[in-house]
Amino acid sequence: MIDLDLICICDVESTGLNPTTDEVIELGCILYSLSHNTVLQQVSTLMPVSVDVNPVEHINGISAGAASKLDGRPFQSEAIDLIESIMAYADGILAHNAPFDRSFVDRLEISTVASSVPWIDTRSVTWPRATRQRCNLVELALAYSIPVWSNHRALTDCQLLAHIIQREPDAKRLLEKELESKVWATWRTTVNDKEGQARAKAAGFRWNDKTCPANGVWSRLMHPDDIAQLPFDVVVMGADYAN
Amino acid sequence: MIDLDLICICDVESTGLNPTTDEVIELGCILYSLSHNTVLQQVSTLMPVSVDVNPVEHINGISAGAASKLDGRPFQSEAIDLIESIMAYADGILAHNAPFDRSFVDRLEISTVASSVPWIDTRSVTWPRATRQRCNLVELALAYSIPVWSNHRALTDCQLLAHIIQREPDAKRLLEKELESKVWATWRTTVNDKEGQARAKAAGFRWNDKTCPANGVWSRLMHPDDIAQLPFDVVVMGADYAN
Repeated sequence: MIDLDLICICDVESTGLNPTTDEVIELGCILYSLSHNTVLQQVSTLMPVSVDVNPVEHINGISAGAASKLDGRPFQSEAIDLIESIMAYADGILAHNAPFDRSFVDRLEISTVASSVPWIDTRSVTWPRATRQRCNLVELALAYSIPVWSNHRALTDCQLLAHIIQREPDAKRLLEKELESKVWATWRTTVNDKEGQARAKAAGFRWNDKTCPANGVWSRLMHPDDIAQLPFDVVVMGADYAN
Repeated sequence: MIDLDLICICDVESTGLNPTTDEVIELGCILYSLSHNTVLQQVSTLMPVSVDVNPVEHINGISAGAASKLDGRPFQSEAIDLIESIMAYADGILAHNAPFDRSFVDRLEISTVASSVPWIDTRSVTWPRATRQRCNLVELALAYSIPVWSNHRALTDCQLLAHIIQREPDAKRLLEKELESKVWATWRTTVNDKEGQARAKAAGFRWNDKTCPANGVWSRLMHPDDIAQLPFDVVVMGADYAN
């Protein structure tokens, strides 16, 4: 039985979407205690990048000049060490759309520690108050009546997630379920069934997901307990949870 | 000529108002670059306290149990080390009502480093958009159209201050003026002049301030440049800025 208490909520801001060619420009994390339902520690740091201009400065507002400001300063590496220590101690690392953040963390020195801890993608969680499943962080925060007035800085996004968790009474169990075995729920329809497709999408289903063993179906990897709550009938296919 | 760039915005949450008997329960700071007008680093950590119950848990929401959760863990001291490194490197340490925060920081191991850097009390700054001077942090944030939906956690309060600075075009000069010599502006009135007293109060004047060399007057320690902007006539008394 998985028992989560200390979780590390993590967020990466980057210079683009490609972890092979783009770089981490800011890294942030929050150490959160589920048993105390509160934030224990927070840390974020800009990271120097090799480019002179951040191609996505219009999104995250971080200039390459600001990011280079800390280059070679002791507190630059001290902040990374602190993030590494927090990750090493956490029962799980959380991120919203975790595969994205993880692909960038994998390229940092902290990757060995980060990959020794199970990751939980909060976008895959079936949040009871979400108006549609697999929605983005801002939409999810608003569904939880959390005021949003900025995003796309690492710690701001971590804090939105911390507030969502704090307001969700069942958070601990919801997150633990993400670490248990899941199955593929699949659903087939016709091209013209727009209403059915919208309903599947709102339930977090994706069409022709490449990671799903069935082709040409709407599907979602889910905890078996959540299948019964779907508003339509699905075909279930076994699949172990691949973290 | 003082030239501020990297500032450390600092906030202490404590178990009470008395630095001799009460303890720091959370410490947070933001490293902010005035030249880039952006946040470079953020860090906060709960700190173990000797009491079983935090007497002001109803204010800051921090339980003694949560604060003790980090006791003896490596990242507890790593976070403090990071705060110390940031303070050591900063051109100034900022806090809203700085004497309060400083009295608590003075009791921590980081006090030697913290006292080697000039402190700036942002409550003493003449903020152009403040509806009244020397107001509290929430009032000041609202005057700058910054949404406030929580306070009294260390990093939340630092972030409010960072947003105020980010929105104030003249922030660099306003903060630098706090480190220059100041004078006492004093104003005398009668007991019944309620309107005049309210006006003096809104301008940040206090009655019978014990640190003012004159008795029985309304007074404020100010930068000489700001005297002319007062909406009433004052008597100026020389006084060096005592940091």
